[in-house]
Amino acid sequence: MKRPTFTLLAAALGLAIAIPTHADEGMWMPSQLPSIAKPLREAGFQGNPAELADLTKAPLNAVVKVGGATGSFISDDGLVLTNHHVAFGVIQYNSNAQRDLIQNGFVSHERAEELPANPDFRLRVTTGFDRISDKVLAAAKGKTGRAYFDAIDAISKATVAECERESGMRCSVVNMFYGRDFYLVKQLELRDLRLVYAPPRAIGNYGDEVDNFVWPRHAGDFTLLRAYVGPDGKPADYAKDNVPYHPPAHLQVARDGVKEGDFVMLAGYPGITYRHRTAAEFADQVQWRLPTTVEVMQQLEHVIEDTGRDDRQAAIRYASQLQSLKNNIKRFQGELDGLKRSDAVTVRRKDEDAMLAWLAAQPQASKLRPQIDQVGQLIAAGNATRERDLLLGMMQTQTQLLRSAIVLQRLAHERGRPDAQREAGYQLRDEELIAGTLRQVQRRYDPAVERRLLTALLTRYQKLPDTQRVPEFDAAFGRTSEALSHKLEQVYGATQLGDEAARLGWLKADPATVAKSDDALLVVAAQLQPALLRMEDERKSHEGDLLRLRPGYMDALIAYRQKQGRAVYPDANATLRVSYGKVTPLKARDAVTYEPLTTTAGIVEKNTGAVPFDAPKPLLDAIAKGDYEGYAEAKTQQMPVDFLSNLDTTGGNSGSPVLNAKGELVGLNFDSNWEAVSASWMFDPRYKRAIHVDLRYMRWLMDKVYPAPQLLKEMGVPAR
Amino acid sequence: MKRPTFTLLAAALGLAIAIPTHADEGMWMPSQLPSIAKPLREAGFQGNPAELADLTKAPLNAVVKVGGATGSFISDDGLVLTNHHVAFGVIQYNSNAQRDLIQNGFVSHERAEELPANPDFRLRVTTGFDRISDKVLAAAKGKTGRAYFDAIDAISKATVAECERESGMRCSVVNMFYGRDFYLVKQLELRDLRLVYAPPRAIGNYGDEVDNFVWPRHAGDFTLLRAYVGPDGKPADYAKDNVPYHPPAHLQVARDGVKEGDFVMLAGYPGITYRHRTAAEFADQVQWRLPTTVEVMQQLEHVIEDTGRDDRQAAIRYASQLQSLKNNIKRFQGELDGLKRSDAVTVRRKDEDAMLAWLAAQPQASKLRPQIDQVGQLIAAGNATRERDLLLGMMQTQTQLLRSAIVLQRLAHERGRPDAQREAGYQLRDEELIAGTLRQVQRRYDPAVERRLLTALLTRYQKLPDTQRVPEFDAAFGRTSEALSHKLEQVYGATQLGDEAARLGWLKADPATVAKSDDALLVVAAQLQPALLRMEDERKSHEGDLLRLRPGYMDALIAYRQKQGRAVYPDANATLRVSYGKVTPLKARDAVTYEPLTTTAGIVEKNTGAVPFDAPKPLLDAIAKGDYEGYAEAKTQQMPVDFLSNLDTTGGNSGSPVLNAKGELVGLNFDSNWEAVSASWMFDPRYKRAIHVDLRYMRWLMDKVYPAPQLLKEMGVPAR
Repeated sequence: MKRPTFTLLAAALGLAIAIPTHADEGMWMPSQLPSIAKPLREAGFQGNPAELADLTKAPLNAVVKVGGATGSFISDDGLVLTNHHVAFGVIQYNSNAQRDLIQNGFVSHERAEELPANPDFRLRVTTGFDRISDKVLAAAKGKTGRAYFDAIDAISKATVAECERESGMRCSVVNMFYGRDFYLVKQLELRDLRLVYAPPRAIGNYGDEVDNFVWPRHAGDFTLLRAYVGPDGKPADYAKDNVPYHPPAHLQVARDGVKEGDFVMLAGYPGITYRHRTAAEFADQVQWRLPTTVEVMQQLEHVIEDTGRDDRQAAIRYASQLQSLKNNIKRFQGELDGLKRSDAVTVRRKDEDAMLAWLAAQPQASKLRPQIDQVGQLIAAGNATRERDLLLGMMQTQTQLLRSAIVLQRLAHERGRPDAQREAGYQLRDEELIAGTLRQVQRRYDPAVERRLLTALLTRYQKLPDTQRVPEFDAAFGRTSEALSHKLEQVYGATQLGDEAARLGWLKADPATVAKSDDALLVVAAQLQPALLRMEDERKSHEGDLLRLRPGYMDALIAYRQKQGRAVYPDANATLRVSYGKVTPLKARDAVTYEPLTTTAGIVEKNTGAVPFDAPKPLLDAIAKGDYEGYAEAKTQQMPVDFLSNLDTTGGNSGSPVLNAKGELVGLNFDSNWEAVSASWMFDPRYKRAIHVDLRYMRWLMDKVYPAPQLLKEMGVPAR
Repeated sequence: MKRPTFTLLAAALGLAIAIPTHADEGMWMPSQLPSIAKPLREAGFQGNPAELADLTKAPLNAVVKVGGATGSFISDDGLVLTNHHVAFGVIQYNSNAQRDLIQNGFVSHERAEELPANPDFRLRVTTGFDRISDKVLAAAKGKTGRAYFDAIDAISKATVAECERESGMRCSVVNMFYGRDFYLVKQLELRDLRLVYAPPRAIGNYGDEVDNFVWPRHAGDFTLLRAYVGPDGKPADYAKDNVPYHPPAHLQVARDGVKEGDFVMLAGYPGITYRHRTAAEFADQVQWRLPTTVEVMQQLEHVIEDTGRDDRQAAIRYASQLQSLKNNIKRFQGELDGLKRSDAVTVRRKDEDAMLAWLAAQPQASKLRPQIDQVGQLIAAGNATRERDLLLGMMQTQTQLLRSAIVLQRLAHERGRPDAQREAGYQLRDEELIAGTLRQVQRRYDPAVERRLLTALLTRYQKLPDTQRVPEFDAAFGRTSEALSHKLEQVYGATQLGDEAARLGWLKADPATVAKSDDALLVVAAQLQPALLRMEDERKSHEGDLLRLRPGYMDALIAYRQKQGRAVYPDANATLRVSYGKVTPLKARDAVTYEPLTTTAGIVEKNTGAVPFDAPKPLLDAIAKGDYEGYAEAKTQQMPVDFLSNLDTTGGNSGSPVLNAKGELVGLNFDSNWEAVSASWMFDPRYKRAIHVDLRYMRWLMDKVYPAPQLLKEMGVPAR
């Protein structure tokens, strides 16, 4: 392009410019890789794309789910590489005042020293990934709305139950392209994980919140675990006699590192993206949902802050909720800024318009166009009550006592049905969790704050037009500010739910007693319950229809992209995906370029001696000594720490292995840059970056700083 | 160097590494340029260095003093280019509610529209620069201490008085190399300056405090003035019939711009540097003076903030003092951080040790070494009371009422002597200023705050050892916190100086009445006065001896540098200096590179629509239009705004013209980067940068955004 900044400028000025969203974008299902073999090879991949097609075979079956994120096997004896922050619970579980592994890190010198993880920590190896679209869709055929939703739900649950009959297996049905395809995922669940090697916090989490989402970064965010199984080779709970698990495959650690421009690829379990949402949904997100959510959350933030200024006790009780509001506000605002910077609404609108124009001349138009129009109508219909839904939703998530009352009434309602038919979250196995939540209220509740939060939300609600009103809510809280104020004063003055024993007591009461309780807040919850159930039913019906109709939108999009010469990946849904790209600098803003590799010099630069920039003395000493032989970059003799790529990632990709052109392990994904927060909706190649630990740094630490030569040998990259 | 980051690392770790301080360092006297002709040519200068040797001849006599900073003539009709912030007073003077030139900028379309500057605004053209060392030093020969100081002072004053007999001339005696050389500077002072062209604030000061000291920068910090003289060609006060001044020379605006790596040079009036101070003074600055000053100022900051929290009126009165404290704390802390980053103490110490070792074998050692040792002893002796001097100094600068009392007593004291013999600042011509200061107190004084500030300072003073105590202060304020508290309560309860009329009344009283006043605070000031006079005498005696002995240190340093093949420039002293270097990126920190040119794209990126990032609509429209023909960079078609160089600058260099290898005007200096705050002591080539307006941006604004074609034509670069 002759004028490379024009796009940037134009986007900032709100002009309509086509951003090349396809460059390096994509969270591909492994099965799609053979179909994009050509661009993959052109990008620099030296292996055979066909060998990556089956995620249950080597090498992709070495990529596993660890905790809520990703990890990979890196030895034949079950050594697992993941992030320090992913394994943090394991490190914490093994720490105490006498042996602070968080602060000091941990190096096991022999297998007997390896420390068992917390018993609920799990690792899953995918052993099956079968397309069951026909079976699932057949079950819902002819149905619409809630019936469609329930049919998909029922066949999915039945399929999972059948699959999990095999011992040690965890199964799930996942849907690709918003209901177009369904897959049965079958995973071997390992339950005996042990801590093998962890750097000190001040390496693993160097920079902490200050550096979170920040590049340049200098964290050694890695930890090594080992998977164990029973002597019979089957998954087992921790036992002294368990033996290391021999995975079907493991990744090979590279001997060399990467440099700017090198091909890299990554495999992992990205959580959720919205890239293929409709133009109307993009507009809703940018023009209404994000700014409104930020506005409402800021209002709640101010309520808590204002009250907390004069009431230290209230400030402490709401500290966690306030922090959470602040984090969300920051994140949503970042997403909004990013989507505006990328001019996402216009770009998506023009793209969709072009698709529809193209579709009009295609034979499938007569089938797909009506479906697409219906999707549009459904979305528009949903938007008609979006203000109400947002406010009433927050009424339940941002209150403590009212939420408790609503949960108690709902549980009473569900208890009247057989366990299997109860709503998820209210089954027998959930009751322990509910009790815990009701107990927590004690540390997080203050009546004055809750009344003010509710006042803020319900005052907004009272101003909505009649079309968004809910009779039960109007009846419960009145339609004027005076009525609301009076009602809240009366209810919060009278309810006994603020008392822990009283609150927990209702858990033990029989359903009919709860329903007829004369506790002021339980009365309100009982009054609201029909509305909540009705709105839930409407939501499921809405979702059922979207699940039924969106596949038409996706069919059109996939066909249109094919005509453009582009493949389409399904939006992320926590299934294994592969992304490829290269080691890439970030032109963060005018005249500012972030180079894609950081070095140990940056650790010293950032180091203040105080948390979170308090690199341990052994590390500072080793940097001063500069013994980087075999690890440093050949040309500059600088020791790499982290590197940056344009790989397509999102939450859930933590711990994903980063491979070079030969498929060897060169990095470990652990974060994104701040500018990429909006990538869940739109991949903007100018700003989307992923942040990885350079495996040379890990190897150097394990060789020279906190030595573990036996582990390096096990990984096939012995100490120098 | 094989390992370029080692220096950085080592410096950060406190290891002793020689930093190449000579690369591109230097604020050269023009007369020195022929002696550095070789490096100047090697750096890329294409002109004849000999032609730059005389600052009273072209082209350097086109570089003038404007306000407190620098400017340059850029047309034969007296057009002057300087910074928007340098000419801000002129713009403000011509602004009112009806015609807000600050907000809207100003474009004169013909000479009759040019607006007169505030009457005290001055421009000075240097017409003489003569070395008078022999004369000055002869006057002081054989003297020491206070007598040496007074002799230099007297001969300087007499020389200036003699020189200023010529009408329209302002003269000064400046000393180079700390008393080694003296020069008589003769300047033609022009008094009729007019505003010709100023961009709106949101261009001239785009980014304001947020971007201050920041690179990347996007300000169009320039303004055009015109110098006028009487019809007889002589300096004159503003009069309608005055005519444009025809300067002896003017700079030629370049048609082309610069790019990374290009040679650039700059001429201007840098204020003060300390580069040739001794190793002991570097150690004092880093290890004691900066951290202690920051600590004491932070204590005063907290006093003001604490009081202001509960007393809004006090907060308002001390807002300006608080802001000034904050700015100083930030600046001193920045200087401290920078000097530590550069490991300045060790670097200077090793350099001085090497000089002394070399000197030992030289014939001049027997003469110079004793002088150098005496300098060391004087500095050590001065350090013996540094805590006291700092605290008692702040007692006078950080109080309002006590300072007023001290000033009134001192003025009474000085009024007893002939005007010519009065101390500078207390002469007849200063009395108006003193009255103004006493009047200002009313808006800046609160008795509770002043007592707390004094308590903080004097409590620190009370803890000093006896060797630093001053009997008069002990007598006035007691030696215990109880005595201090009691005394301040009594004095501030009784004094009438808080009343403006009372305070100003004392200005009119005769000296004896003031000296015998029974106002509680004037009594304290009278009690302290003998001590203040005694300490002032000691300081001047100390300075006199340093002035006498430092030349020995400088002789040794100059000889040692000569042996190293390096020339030595005198520390900055507000005389015309020339610096050369190149357009240079800044590797700000690990993996972060700042490119040396910003572009208009960055204006759009930064623009929030709110002050200080509220670029005017005409500018945003012009950027969107992108009509950069003839101004943009040829290769990228990007429109430059500001650029970065490694030129050696300090405060006072604002408005300095930046020239290319052919001596043509390519930029206008207006700021430094934050990392360069410590450059007043040490030039670290890794971090020292200067920030300039790219003249292409100025020309484009004057062509396409706020057109002034007649001015472009006058400058010889007509609109395209």
